[in-house]
Amino acid sequence: MIVEMQRNATQSQVDAVIERAQGYGFEVQLNRGTDKVVIAILGSDTGHVPTANFEVLPGVGSVTRIMRPYKLASREFRSEPTEIRVGDVTIGGPRVVVMAGPCSIESWEQLDATARHVIGAGASILRGGAFKPRSSPFSFQGMGFEGAALLRQAGQALKAPVVSEVTDSHFVERMAQEVDILQIGARNMQNYTLLRAVGETNKPCLLKRGLAATVTEWLQAADYVLAAGTAQVILCERGIRSFEDSTRFTLDISAVPVIKRQSHLPVIVDPSHAAGHYALVPGLARAAIAAGADGLLIEVHPDPANALSDGLQSLTFSDFARLMVECRQIAEAIGRTL
Amino acid sequence: MIVEMQRNATQSQVDAVIERAQGYGFEVQLNRGTDKVVIAILGSDTGHVPTANFEVLPGVGSVTRIMRPYKLASREFRSEPTEIRVGDVTIGGPRVVVMAGPCSIESWEQLDATARHVIGAGASILRGGAFKPRSSPFSFQGMGFEGAALLRQAGQALKAPVVSEVTDSHFVERMAQEVDILQIGARNMQNYTLLRAVGETNKPCLLKRGLAATVTEWLQAADYVLAAGTAQVILCERGIRSFEDSTRFTLDISAVPVIKRQSHLPVIVDPSHAAGHYALVPGLARAAIAAGADGLLIEVHPDPANALSDGLQSLTFSDFARLMVECRQIAEAIGRTL
Amino acid sequence: MIVEMQRNATQSQVDAVIERAQGYGFEVQLNRGTDKVVIAILGSDTGHVPTANFEVLPGVGSVTRIMRPYKLASREFRSEPTEIRVGDVTIGGPRVVVMAGPCSIESWEQLDATARHVIGAGASILRGGAFKPRSSPFSFQGMGFEGAALLRQAGQALKAPVVSEVTDSHFVERMAQEVDILQIGARNMQNYTLLRAVGETNKPCLLKRGLAATVTEWLQAADYVLAAGTAQVILCERGIRSFEDSTRFTLDISAVPVIKRQSHLPVIVDPSHAAGHYALVPGLARAAIAAGADGLLIEVHPDPANALSDGLQSLTFSDFARLMVECRQIAEAIGRTL
Amino acid sequence: MIVEMQRNATQSQVDAVIERAQGYGFEVQLNRGTDKVVIAILGSDTGHVPTANFEVLPGVGSVTRIMRPYKLASREFRSEPTEIRVGDVTIGGPRVVVMAGPCSIESWEQLDATARHVIGAGASILRGGAFKPRSSPFSFQGMGFEGAALLRQAGQALKAPVVSEVTDSHFVERMAQEVDILQIGARNMQNYTLLRAVGETNKPCLLKRGLAATVTEWLQAADYVLAAGTAQVILCERGIRSFEDSTRFTLDISAVPVIKRQSHLPVIVDPSHAAGHYALVPGLARAAIAAGADGLLIEVHPDPANALSDGLQSLTFSDFARLMVECRQIAEAIGRTL
Repeated sequence: MIVEMQRNATQSQVDAVIERAQGYGFEVQLNRGTDKVVIAILGSDTGHVPTANFEVLPGVGSVTRIMRPYKLASREFRSEPTEIRVGDVTIGGPRVVVMAGPCSIESWEQLDATARHVIGAGASILRGGAFKPRSSPFSFQGMGFEGAALLRQAGQALKAPVVSEVTDSHFVERMAQEVDILQIGARNMQNYTLLRAVGETNKPCLLKRGLAATVTEWLQAADYVLAAGTAQVILCERGIRSFEDSTRFTLDISAVPVIKRQSHLPVIVDPSHAAGHYALVPGLARAAIAAGADGLLIEVHPDPANALSDGLQSLTFSDFARLMVECRQIAEAIGRTL
Repeated sequence: MIVEMQRNATQSQVDAVIERAQGYGFEVQLNRGTDKVVIAILGSDTGHVPTANFEVLPGVGSVTRIMRPYKLASREFRSEPTEIRVGDVTIGGPRVVVMAGPCSIESWEQLDATARHVIGAGASILRGGAFKPRSSPFSFQGMGFEGAALLRQAGQALKAPVVSEVTDSHFVERMAQEVDILQIGARNMQNYTLLRAVGETNKPCLLKRGLAATVTEWLQAADYVLAAGTAQVILCERGIRSFEDSTRFTLDISAVPVIKRQSHLPVIVDPSHAAGHYALVPGLARAAIAAGADGLLIEVHPDPANALSDGLQSLTFSDFARLMVECRQIAEAIGRTL
Repeated sequence: MIVEMQRNATQSQVDAVIERAQGYGFEVQLNRGTDKVVIAILGSDTGHVPTANFEVLPGVGSVTRIMRPYKLASREFRSEPTEIRVGDVTIGGPRVVVMAGPCSIESWEQLDATARHVIGAGASILRGGAFKPRSSPFSFQGMGFEGAALLRQAGQALKAPVVSEVTDSHFVERMAQEVDILQIGARNMQNYTLLRAVGETNKPCLLKRGLAATVTEWLQAADYVLAAGTAQVILCERGIRSFEDSTRFTLDISAVPVIKRQSHLPVIVDPSHAAGHYALVPGLARAAIAAGADGLLIEVHPDPANALSDGLQSLTFSDFARLMVECRQIAEAIGRTL
Repeated sequence: MIVEMQRNATQSQVDAVIERAQGYGFEVQLNRGTDKVVIAILGSDTGHVPTANFEVLPGVGSVTRIMRPYKLASREFRSEPTEIRVGDVTIGGPRVVVMAGPCSIESWEQLDATARHVIGAGASILRGGAFKPRSSPFSFQGMGFEGAALLRQAGQALKAPVVSEVTDSHFVERMAQEVDILQIGARNMQNYTLLRAVGETNKPCLLKRGLAATVTEWLQAADYVLAAGTAQVILCERGIRSFEDSTRFTLDISAVPVIKRQSHLPVIVDPSHAAGHYALVPGLARAAIAAGADGLLIEVHPDPANALSDGLQSLTFSDFARLMVECRQIAEAIGRTL
C-alpha cells in the first residue's frame, strides 16, 4: 500500500501512519520527495487491510493499493491452473466443457427430453434450475427440492454430473445431496452467508459474477468460498450491467483473458443470460471459446415459446446441436477439444 | 403491451399472439399499418407478464411494455403518499427524518455515546449495524444478535426507534424483536426469500436500492415486500455503480423526484455509502433534502480513525451537529421541518 | 410510435395528439382500453420524429418508439449485406480483413518496417495515426499531414490501402487525398460537422463507436454519414465505458451479432483500444472473428516500449505474426478466410 | 508514480525503470520489500507522463499514479477559488448565478420574450443555442450565426451577458464576437482542436462534462483550455451515462463537492439536460445549489409543446419564475444569494 501524505503533513501525522502500519505487522519504507512524503507499506497481507484505514488518518492525501485485495484466488497464491474433476469430467483442462439444460425444471418429461438431447449432442454436464430468483413476485418460482430430485435422477440416467443454483444458505446441505456442482447466482455473489455455506461442503462451486461486480470483487467473493475450505471454484461470466440496451446484459468477454492472467481458477461463460435472446447466443458462445473460456453454460428447451421462464434466451434442440458443431470447430482451431 | 409484428408476419402468427394475450385474460386491439401489424394488448395486469412471453413467438418483431412491471408500489395503485409511523416518528410526512448512528455496533460505550449525541443533535431514529456484509472474508463481520440487543437497549434509553440490517431470512424473526425497522441492504435487494420474510413481519422495511438496480427494479423489489403483507416500505437511495471513480458510488439524486412521481412510498437518502468519504457527506445530505427526500441515513462515529468499519465515510460528533443545523435550514427553505 | 394517454386524459388532449401525428403525415389508430386510451402512430418515417414531441403534449402518459430512429443503416432499408471494395480488398465479404499498423506514425523508418511486417504477415490494409487526439495537452499529438503523406507512400509501396483518422471537418478534403479510408474516432462519433464532411467525399468511412454510445446511437451516426451521400460505412466496435477497471474499456462483443441483425453495414473490431494491454489483444481478436466480425483493427509497433503513444496496447512483430496464424484458424473454423 | 516490479524482476529490469524515470527528470526512491521491489517516482510533473510508459517495460507488475494527471485546474496549482467576471456578473463568488433561455434560438420573438422573462425573474445570464448538435440528421440544426446575432442583440437590450455553444474550431473567432461566454458541449469535451481554439480567445469558456467522462478527464480537458492561455473556465455538470433509464442522464451531484475539493474553478449544474423532463428540473436545480454549485443552466421556452428542440425538458415562464423563488430560498439557507 502506498500512502501519499498531504504537502503540509506534520511529522507526527507521518508517524501515526507508520505506527498503524507496523501495528498490522507490515514493513514500512519512507520516501521524502521535495514536495511531499510518500510511505510504502509492504507485506504480503496488505491486501486484506482496507485502504480507508489509512485514508482516515489526518494528513493523509491518498492511499493506493499494490497488493490485490484477494489472495486464495490469485495466480500469486497458486501459479498452476486449477483443474476440477466432477465424475468423469474435468473443468479447467484441455477440453472445453459444455453445461446445458433448461432454465427451469418444469416436469420430468421436459427435463428428461432436454437432458437426452444435450448430452447426446456433446454437453457433458446437465444444468437445470430448481430455485428461480425472479424479479417479479408473480412469476413462476421453480419446483424447489422436487425439481432438484428430478435433476439428480436425469443426471444419473445419463451418467452426467448435474449443476443447479442454491439461493439460501439453509438449502445448501440438502442441495449438496442432490447435485454435483452448487451454483451461486449473480444476485447472490455477495451473499456472504451463502458463500461460506457452499464453501464448507465438499462440492465444487460455480460462482457467477455479480451484474455490477468488478473482476476484483468477483475474485474476492471467490476468496470467501475458498477460505471456507473448498478448493473447487469455477468462475462464470454472465454479463454485466452497462448503458447498452440492445442486449439484456453486456457480456464482458475481456474478463476471460483477465481472469486467466490474475487467477488459477477455471472460468466459463453463460451467453444465454448475457444476451437475453436466442439469436445472439451462438455468436457469443463461439467468442467465449475463442477467447479462452474453459466452458459454456447454455439454456436449452424443447419448446422455448412455452417455457415457464427465460424462453426467449433458450435454444431449441436443433439450434443447440448446430451450435455444438460450431463450438467444436472453434475449440479445435485453438488446440482444445469439446 | 404493444406487439409489433415483423413485416412478413403471417395471419396465423398474428393469431397466435392474440390467442396468447386472450389466454392471459387481456383485451386485444389490432392496428394494421401499411407496413406491418401492431397489436395493442390492454389490461391492468399486463405489467405482470414478461414481454419475453410474446417476443418468443414466431413473427414477432418487438414487444414494448406500457404498464410498469410493478403495481403495489405505484402511484396508480395508491395516489396518496404513504406515511409510516414508528413510535412517535412519522416517515413520509412534512418532517424530514434523520436516522443516524455508527456503521457497526462495536461496544456499548461506542453505541451509547453515539446514540446520545445524534439524538441530542436532532436525529429521530438510531441506526447501527449488527450484521455486516463485508467484501473481504478477513474483515470484521459485526457483533450479530448481541449487537442488535445493545441497539434495542440504546434506543429504549433515549425513546428513539432503531433500525438495523437483516442479512438472512432466518434471522428475520429474531431481529424483528430487537428493532423497529428492518433494513434490507443493497446487496440483498433481489434476495427474494429475504424480501418475503421481512414483508411477513409487522415491522416497517427500509429497502435500499441495489447498486446496479434501476428505479423500476427497485420498485419491483418493493412489490415483493408489499405483496407479502406489510404496507410499510421506506425506499433508500444509496448510490449506484457507474464509471466515475472519485466517489465510492454515484448518488442518483434524480431518483428522489422520480420516485415521488412514480410511487407513493417515502424515499430517504444515504449519503455516507454513496460518497464513501466524510468530506462529501454534508453536500450530498443537503442536496437530498433540497431534492425532496423524506429523510437521511447517516453514519456517525465517536472516533472515525479507529472505527472497525467504514470510518472514512463516518462523521465525527461535531461534523454531525454542524450538518444538522445546515439540514434544518434547507428543510425550512422548502417548507418542511427537521 | 405508441402514445399512451394518462387515465384522466380528455378527448381534446387525445385530439391534439392525433392532430400532431397527422400533421407529420402519419397514420393514426385509436385503441380505447377500459383504463386508458392508447394511440398507435404508424408510418415508415416515424423514426425521424423524437418521442419527446408527443411526450410534451398535455395528457400524454408515455410514448414508445416502434420504428428505430435510424433508417439508411438498417436492415429494413437494405436487406443484403453491404460489401465495400478498397483497392483489391473487400470488406464485408467472406474474407476477414485485418487492418494493422502503428498507433502513431512516428517516422518513415518506424512506419515502413511495421508496414512491411504486417502486410507480410497477412494484414491487407495499413493503419497509422497522423492526427492523435490525446487526453493530455502535454502528450505527443501526431505528425499531422506529414504523417499522412508517409502513410500513403508506405501503402503504395506495398500496394495496400491505407486508413487514418481525421479529426476536424476542415482536414477532410486534404486527408481524402492521402488515404483510402477515412476514420472517424470514438470521441468524434457525434461530431456531426465531421460526419457530414466525411460522408460527402467518395471515400469509405470507418466509423468507430463512441465510448458511451448505444448501438442505436451509433447507427444514427452512420445515418449522418450515409445521408451525406456515401454508401460506404464500416462500423468499428472499440469498447465502451463501464464500471469495470481491469481493462481500459469494455469490449461489447455482443455488438457484433446485434449489428449483423439490425444493419447491412460491415462491422469490425479494435481489440487494442478496448483492452489497453497487449496481453489481452489476442484473446479479444480471436473472439471477434468467432463472433462474426468482418475484420480487425490492430496496433503493432517495432518497439512498443519506446512508442510515442499507446505502446502498452501495441503488439510486437512476432506477437502479431503469431496472432495472424491463430486468427486464420478461427476464420476457417467458421467458414471464412483471412 | 509508484512502479511495483514483478516478483521475479531482474536487477536490469529495475534499472531500466529507474533510467526512464530519470530521463524524464524525476526523482527515484527504491523500496525493497521481502517479496518485491517498489519504485517511487517523485516530482511535480509526473502527472503529465502516462502510466503506460512504465507499464510497458519488462518486469513491471503495475504502475500507480500519485500526482493527478491534470495540473492547471487543480487546487494544488491554485489554492484560492477562481472568480470569473462577465459584465457585472461574477461566477464563483457568493452569489449563485442562473443562466437561462431557450434550448434553440428559433426567432427574435421567441428569444426576446424568453429573455425578458428569465432576466426579469432573476437569471443574470442569457443562454440560447445557435448551433445545435442533434443525434438525427433529419432534426432542426439551429439558426447558426444568425441566431448568435439575435442572442447578442437580446443580451444587449437587457444588459445581460450571453452564452452559446460553439461546435467547430473554425467558428470560434466569429462566435467570440457575438457572445460573452463560449460554451463547449458535452459531445465536444475531448475535441482538442476546439478546446485549444476557445482557450486562445479572451472569452470565458463554459466547459460541459462529457457524458462518459470521469471528473479527472473533465479536469484534464479544462487543462487543455487553460494551457491555451485563458484563465477563465467554468465547469458544468450535465449528467453522465449510466444504466438507469428513468432519466435521460444521471446527474452526478457528487461531482459538485468533488470539484470543490480538487479544483479552484467554479462549477455549475445543468439540470435540464440531465433530467430530460421538465417535471424533474426543479428538484435537481434545488439540489445543485444545496450541494454547493456556483450556478445553474436552465432551459426555458414560451411554449414548450411547440419548441423546435428539447421542449420536454424546457420550463414554461411560470414554472421558471416559481423555481427562482425556491432556488433563492435554498441559496439563502446556505448563506449565499441569488
